[in-house]
Amino acid sequence: MALQEASAVAIADGYAQATRSPALVNVHTSAGISNTMSNIMTAAMNHTPLIVTAGNQTRDMLLMEPWLTNVEPEMLTKPWAKWSYQPVRAADVPAAFMRAYAIAVQPPAGPVFLSIPLDDWEQPAASTPVLRSVATQIGPDPERIADFARRLSGAKNPVLIYGSSIARGDGWAQAVTLAEKLGAPVWAAPSSERPPFPENHPQYRGGLPFAIGPLADRLAGHDVGIVIGAPVFRYYPYVAGEYLPEGMALLHVTDDPAEAGKAPVGDSLLCDAVLALEGLIERVVDRAPSKPAEVNPHRMAPHPAPLVGDPGEVMTALELFETIRSVVPDATVLMEESPSNIAELHTAWPIEEPDSFYTAASGSLGWTLPASVGVALAERDSGRNRPVVVMIGDGSFHYAIQALGTAAAHRLPILYVVPRNGEYAILKAFAELEDTPGVPGLDLPSLDFVALGEGYGCAAERAETVTEVQVAVKAALDRSGPTVLEVPILPTVPPLL
Amino acid sequence: MALQEASAVAIADGYAQATRSPALVNVHTSAGISNTMSNIMTAAMNHTPLIVTAGNQTRDMLLMEPWLTNVEPEMLTKPWAKWSYQPVRAADVPAAFMRAYAIAVQPPAGPVFLSIPLDDWEQPAASTPVLRSVATQIGPDPERIADFARRLSGAKNPVLIYGSSIARGDGWAQAVTLAEKLGAPVWAAPSSERPPFPENHPQYRGGLPFAIGPLADRLAGHDVGIVIGAPVFRYYPYVAGEYLPEGMALLHVTDDPAEAGKAPVGDSLLCDAVLALEGLIERVVDRAPSKPAEVNPHRMAPHPAPLVGDPGEVMTALELFETIRSVVPDATVLMEESPSNIAELHTAWPIEEPDSFYTAASGSLGWTLPASVGVALAERDSGRNRPVVVMIGDGSFHYAIQALGTAAAHRLPILYVVPRNGEYAILKAFAELEDTPGVPGLDLPSLDFVALGEGYGCAAERAETVTEVQVAVKAALDRSGPTVLEVPILPTVPPLL
Amino acid sequence: MALQEASAVAIADGYAQATRSPALVNVHTSAGISNTMSNIMTAAMNHTPLIVTAGNQTRDMLLMEPWLTNVEPEMLTKPWAKWSYQPVRAADVPAAFMRAYAIAVQPPAGPVFLSIPLDDWEQPAASTPVLRSVATQIGPDPERIADFARRLSGAKNPVLIYGSSIARGDGWAQAVTLAEKLGAPVWAAPSSERPPFPENHPQYRGGLPFAIGPLADRLAGHDVGIVIGAPVFRYYPYVAGEYLPEGMALLHVTDDPAEAGKAPVGDSLLCDAVLALEGLIERVVDRAPSKPAEVNPHRMAPHPAPLVGDPGEVMTALELFETIRSVVPDATVLMEESPSNIAELHTAWPIEEPDSFYTAASGSLGWTLPASVGVALAERDSGRNRPVVVMIGDGSFHYAIQALGTAAAHRLPILYVVPRNGEYAILKAFAELEDTPGVPGLDLPSLDFVALGEGYGCAAERAETVTEVQVAVKAALDRSGPTVLEVPILPTVPPLL
Amino acid sequence: MALQEASAVAIADGYAQATRSPALVNVHTSAGISNTMSNIMTAAMNHTPLIVTAGNQTRDMLLMEPWLTNVEPEMLTKPWAKWSYQPVRAADVPAAFMRAYAIAVQPPAGPVFLSIPLDDWEQPAASTPVLRSVATQIGPDPERIADFARRLSGAKNPVLIYGSSIARGDGWAQAVTLAEKLGAPVWAAPSSERPPFPENHPQYRGGLPFAIGPLADRLAGHDVGIVIGAPVFRYYPYVAGEYLPEGMALLHVTDDPAEAGKAPVGDSLLCDAVLALEGLIERVVDRAPSKPAEVNPHRMAPHPAPLVGDPGEVMTALELFETIRSVVPDATVLMEESPSNIAELHTAWPIEEPDSFYTAASGSLGWTLPASVGVALAERDSGRNRPVVVMIGDGSFHYAIQALGTAAAHRLPILYVVPRNGEYAILKAFAELEDTPGVPGLDLPSLDFVALGEGYGCAAERAETVTEVQVAVKAALDRSGPTVLEVPILPTVPPLL
Repeated sequence: MALQEASAVAIADGYAQATRSPALVNVHTSAGISNTMSNIMTAAMNHTPLIVTAGNQTRDMLLMEPWLTNVEPEMLTKPWAKWSYQPVRAADVPAAFMRAYAIAVQPPAGPVFLSIPLDDWEQPAASTPVLRSVATQIGPDPERIADFARRLSGAKNPVLIYGSSIARGDGWAQAVTLAEKLGAPVWAAPSSERPPFPENHPQYRGGLPFAIGPLADRLAGHDVGIVIGAPVFRYYPYVAGEYLPEGMALLHVTDDPAEAGKAPVGDSLLCDAVLALEGLIERVVDRAPSKPAEVNPHRMAPHPAPLVGDPGEVMTALELFETIRSVVPDATVLMEESPSNIAELHTAWPIEEPDSFYTAASGSLGWTLPASVGVALAERDSGRNRPVVVMIGDGSFHYAIQALGTAAAHRLPILYVVPRNGEYAILKAFAELEDTPGVPGLDLPSLDFVALGEGYGCAAERAETVTEVQVAVKAALDRSGPTVLEVPILPTVPPLL
Repeated sequence: MALQEASAVAIADGYAQATRSPALVNVHTSAGISNTMSNIMTAAMNHTPLIVTAGNQTRDMLLMEPWLTNVEPEMLTKPWAKWSYQPVRAADVPAAFMRAYAIAVQPPAGPVFLSIPLDDWEQPAASTPVLRSVATQIGPDPERIADFARRLSGAKNPVLIYGSSIARGDGWAQAVTLAEKLGAPVWAAPSSERPPFPENHPQYRGGLPFAIGPLADRLAGHDVGIVIGAPVFRYYPYVAGEYLPEGMALLHVTDDPAEAGKAPVGDSLLCDAVLALEGLIERVVDRAPSKPAEVNPHRMAPHPAPLVGDPGEVMTALELFETIRSVVPDATVLMEESPSNIAELHTAWPIEEPDSFYTAASGSLGWTLPASVGVALAERDSGRNRPVVVMIGDGSFHYAIQALGTAAAHRLPILYVVPRNGEYAILKAFAELEDTPGVPGLDLPSLDFVALGEGYGCAAERAETVTEVQVAVKAALDRSGPTVLEVPILPTVPPLL
Repeated sequence: MALQEASAVAIADGYAQATRSPALVNVHTSAGISNTMSNIMTAAMNHTPLIVTAGNQTRDMLLMEPWLTNVEPEMLTKPWAKWSYQPVRAADVPAAFMRAYAIAVQPPAGPVFLSIPLDDWEQPAASTPVLRSVATQIGPDPERIADFARRLSGAKNPVLIYGSSIARGDGWAQAVTLAEKLGAPVWAAPSSERPPFPENHPQYRGGLPFAIGPLADRLAGHDVGIVIGAPVFRYYPYVAGEYLPEGMALLHVTDDPAEAGKAPVGDSLLCDAVLALEGLIERVVDRAPSKPAEVNPHRMAPHPAPLVGDPGEVMTALELFETIRSVVPDATVLMEESPSNIAELHTAWPIEEPDSFYTAASGSLGWTLPASVGVALAERDSGRNRPVVVMIGDGSFHYAIQALGTAAAHRLPILYVVPRNGEYAILKAFAELEDTPGVPGLDLPSLDFVALGEGYGCAAERAETVTEVQVAVKAALDRSGPTVLEVPILPTVPPLL
Repeated sequence: MALQEASAVAIADGYAQATRSPALVNVHTSAGISNTMSNIMTAAMNHTPLIVTAGNQTRDMLLMEPWLTNVEPEMLTKPWAKWSYQPVRAADVPAAFMRAYAIAVQPPAGPVFLSIPLDDWEQPAASTPVLRSVATQIGPDPERIADFARRLSGAKNPVLIYGSSIARGDGWAQAVTLAEKLGAPVWAAPSSERPPFPENHPQYRGGLPFAIGPLADRLAGHDVGIVIGAPVFRYYPYVAGEYLPEGMALLHVTDDPAEAGKAPVGDSLLCDAVLALEGLIERVVDRAPSKPAEVNPHRMAPHPAPLVGDPGEVMTALELFETIRSVVPDATVLMEESPSNIAELHTAWPIEEPDSFYTAASGSLGWTLPASVGVALAERDSGRNRPVVVMIGDGSFHYAIQALGTAAAHRLPILYVVPRNGEYAILKAFAELEDTPGVPGLDLPSLDFVALGEGYGCAAERAETVTEVQVAVKAALDRSGPTVLEVPILPTVPPLL
């Protein structure tokens, strides 16, 4: 149960991802589905199989469009749901669920929407719908993957760009094997919502930047690149440039024809990311021996050296994240929606185990806080019982704050860390890139996150020093329920790129 | 500035209504427009002229659908915006605003949506668009209104059903004149979002119930009814019955052809509500003298007699509302989103002045809290400076709680009263009507509204007795900024009808 | 009954227009509604109230989308139907028709679409839907029309621009009265589908051109213009320029808020065209006496002087039209879809009586041929029994040729005249305007219109000289059924403007 | 060049199918795309990769929606185009074509739509878009196909149901190999638009009926069935029953997740049909030797024995088809749109070579006549130069009759045979099934197909006896251009099933 519908869908999304199974979530007619459209968009980009249902007014009255009717119920969700449907008769509801399930889980997985009039639940079903199983993976065209393998094998200096679909498919092992067989450097695709590769692996080079020119710069010198399980490419600010460095050919593996369609460069292969890794491992020549493993030099580069704080000084984001990482168990799930200090987070907290980091593929705010509730429920239900730490900006915090109430109601061991800089720093960074500094409205009003956390039934504290943070985090880890930890940090506007 | 987009649109809606002028509100690309779709729906049903804009990614990259692209930007808002548009070239942005304005303000007024790619702001405009004025009212077909006047004049026992469009058109005086000339009783249309008539007028009978059978029962005995400025009818739960009592003919005045289209009964006239009142006043026979004014017997009937609390007992909703009404100035703006005790509120607090009550026409939660910010800004900007009191349920409170931060940032004198019953009482009432008692998830988790209010920078208190409430309300009235007042009330599940 | 669905909708449109009452037309599921979408668009622009229905597969199977399912039946017609709906239960079909009717006939009138699953016809209805009447006209805001009257009265040199809605509302008499009271020249709005004013009236100046600069040129010297019952303005080729001549203010009367919204210039009043004429007649000062009526100098100017044919030479379009006009009765209905020689037609055949000319408001080919069947049926059913003459280009002829079969089956006295120039002359004219001469594919293949006419059961002839045409037309007038008359004309490419 | 847009798209579809490459086709703005929506739907169901373009008005004026604007150009084609797009700037047109191509050819292939404003062609492109290649086939999930192979191998009495995607993928050889390895009977899926298997193969059993109960009856006795490359199932009339015979499990191979989603029964595998055949051939056990090949007993069963005509009597459809088959070369392409005598056609003319039969997958009329023009052009361009024979009903003939003009203009050797029964026999059959005999309007008016053919520039004849037909067909084969051959047949209403 959630206090607002945006929370409900993200909770379901987190749960579905962390359990690797589709989830069902119900919201309240048109108002509810409206409130949660942003998180349906995020679920679509996350490729999370969800069946989202909303009630509709009783069929007896729908022609008159009474209060709380979902008018044109199939329209609102069109841009993002894989299928939107209101059964044409009550009797079809069960079979519509079967169809919804089949569409949600087939690749590329994503959310579907069913609108169900109130009185349908009282009507007899047509018949028990037949349970059907459907494919959840597609394999490669054999000739095309052979060609891809040939091109990789023949490259002088290939590079691997891995995406979140590898993580979704539980393919870290295959990703490592291919990288080691090819002896090629590995980048994470820009803004990967789930890390596709161990970030402490010597061949790991970090995450690619999300802009055209800078991304091409990072790939300079390679003659063949292959993107597996990610878009080509997830750009955010527009920085002119060539899509690829000169002389580089790009190969692209995705299980989403739409994604292949809109890529500006690259030859593409439709295939599940992990099946493609396995197919390539079989077919590529072994080049690794001739090439000693480099030491991983730069991952995602941190921003200019963090101020090392004197006691009494406000912490930097990097200091904060390093402090927390040093206190929590290795087996901790990290989640993030703190866009202006994401570089510091990746620096302080490399992801070394699969399924231990989640964020929103869409970049839309309001997903991570409620999604953490779903992830924590999955940790509990699965018996993995890892703690969940959520780094959430003081701007992001408010988009779906209501989920704190659900976290508290379920006594979930989640630590929400709010690095408070009092501004929308990411927007200030964007404004600087666009040469429009001084945009009004980017400073946050005076807010008290401790009170907000307590208001929703969480434990809550404010900490200002390394020691205070250490103590607060340890206390949070000992608690059975959620904790909100507000930590003032030095307000800096990082470069966007 | 708002902390989440749902707030932004409702703030603009409140401001536009309270100033009787269209408002412009900007949200953040697809995520932002998604977050606020529920309040765009409400604005549509409120007939509030709004121009809602959202940025989109730069045209340079839109073909690739980069991060935070609003894909198919004109689709999402389709069910509710009167017009959704992304200019086909940057040069058209100014003229697109002119068209957006023209469409928003023409009857039936409502929200429009413009999607504007990021880089359009740097391009030259085609030319200064010509400022145009458009009609904001439609008049009647003269023959048809003459016929309506004849039918009213010839009725033995006519009844008037007034709707919110009268209030929007500032037509209380005309509504009273017609009622007095006809000597007919006056009902407010079901769930009127703005009172169309002084509730202390002797001819006022209260608000009609929002269900088919019960509504017809209230109108029994009349041979001609006329609905002016409201849907025919706004129903909520389905209760079978005839739409009208036997022998009654219905006339319907609306300026919205879609509303006339979907009415199940009645002959309709397309006309502005206030112009129709004026046209009817001119044409109907004067019947009043022969008929002494009845004393208004029952307005909206209160639910079974309120428990008169012993000291130390929890207050009832009715006691709470009566207590507050007795303390605040006559010239106070009341707003409401507390569906389970709306009957008590109307009983305790009849609306006797125009423009002193607002709620959401859609019944969707999450509108009133932010809308109060817009209304209070309008009170300040207009120099009327009336205080604003918001009765908001402990379930409703969370839907757009972030607007408290905006209220605090602007130091607006709003009193948020949270009658806390710890449950979604309206849903329990609905469940009883549907014979499905015991639905899980309808009790609210433990929440601390004082902390939440403080967290967003409001003053906040908890009060439990009449005296404490009186003291707290007076203190709130003396404050320059917003106050959250939590008051436990007796948890009762009212009958839905 | 029609042989293809495009014909069915245009037949219904012609019938509805000529009888001034809404029509019902049924087509075959998704294929049928697809075939006729162009004529639904035309009906929308014609403001013809139509209820278009299509069957859909049985509800028993719709979830599986069997053969000939209309998938998403409400989507296809969205851009043009005023309302598209598939009832949510069979029981609603009758009431959905009532709603469809109410929406179709309210201003601005237009087509609506209902999708009805096959098995709905066997189910019981919910109840007899109540017959309701709705407004078919809107009147003016009294203040705004008074202001319009003042501005017209105060003008030094006003000009009237009349549109087709005057004709649809049967308002020629009012149009003449206002013009004569103001003593102002009258133009027909560009490409008026129905003539709004007697073309032989001394104040008539012809039709305005459909391009920005040229249109403004024609209006030079006027200080106030008013458009009544037409868009501002219907442009076709883009010719840069100011929308209005310098110093001219524009007033605009329309009953369509969307039309007022998209006009680039002008202050608008929402009102039925004829009610506006009546309101203005009452309010404007009488200026006529001071100003002697000019002789109508130029109507729609013909293109450079037609070649006067020697015997044995191919006729010009103008000669052809003059010849026909001289033979047919005064009371003949003229219809047109011969875009490249429309100027010659207007020159040869001024419209002097109301309801005696029809063409498509949309400019889309394929409407006039079938619409003539509807018009001729209406002439027969109404007892007016005027002959119908259709001037149809040898390119246009094919778009809905199948309607000839329906004309023949009903033995309708229609004369189809095909001025055969063997090319898409209008496209060649457009290509010249765009400086892209020599576009391939604009010459028509060798076609035999006599054979085609006979194939569909019509009488058919070829005539080449004035005498042959005269004889053939007289023969056609004597026939009880349709005639196709092919006449070779001199292939010239007229200037588009 | 076509005389109406419905023809243009079907011509392109025929050409694309017969050349196995995508085609580009341009139509005229909203009117044109409207006219052709039915054939876009058919192309979607045919899985034909098409890029359909339409112009739109100049961007200079689009905000005003001038004449012939395609308003909301991306909406109309939504239900059927895989992607509908109007570039957001002229510079994107080339890259939009690249994206359109990529989306059209990826599985499941289908039409895409681009709307291109008139003035875009004069603007500079952003840059030369990179040519990209994309996958046109997907392979199987290896585990899932292994499981399918196991289930087939373990079946006692398996049955193969082959669909048109096998024909599209040029997989007859593989289809035969698998059938022979399994020794299982082969059915064509209901209403297969392209035959998936040689109809003279001893294991071929005919086409399955397109209704629930009857289809299951045909499969009785099998324990495992597999559908490869077709929907499960293409039903047309509703005949209640179980989807499958008792005890039968169904496997389904399709490359379209939507098709897998809406199937009512069966476990599905996402895979290209021919890759699946190859994968299964590798993996299934060889069962053939133990089971002597049955003689093919009944293919698609003919309807009750055809009347053998006395000389002078009207021919039956079966006699007509047998007569033609006996005269034309073996290597003839047959096309069909004569729904009421399709059973007779299949009986008389079994398809024994690949790529020698085409019809519309959608069942929508108006496709085959123009598509034959595309097929004949492809025969000429490819040098295969087979004659094309089109069996087209006297109702179907009119839906896109204009394509005869294009056939004539290109001098294409196509023989259009019109078996004239003077009625919509298929609708009469449907009416009998639905117990609604005597529906009016199902008889065709008096039409002269010879005249119509000649009118469009074809040779044309009427033949009534076997000998006359033989002579006429031979004459047609000797001609370089198209021939229309009208043959009266006995009007019988066949049972629909």
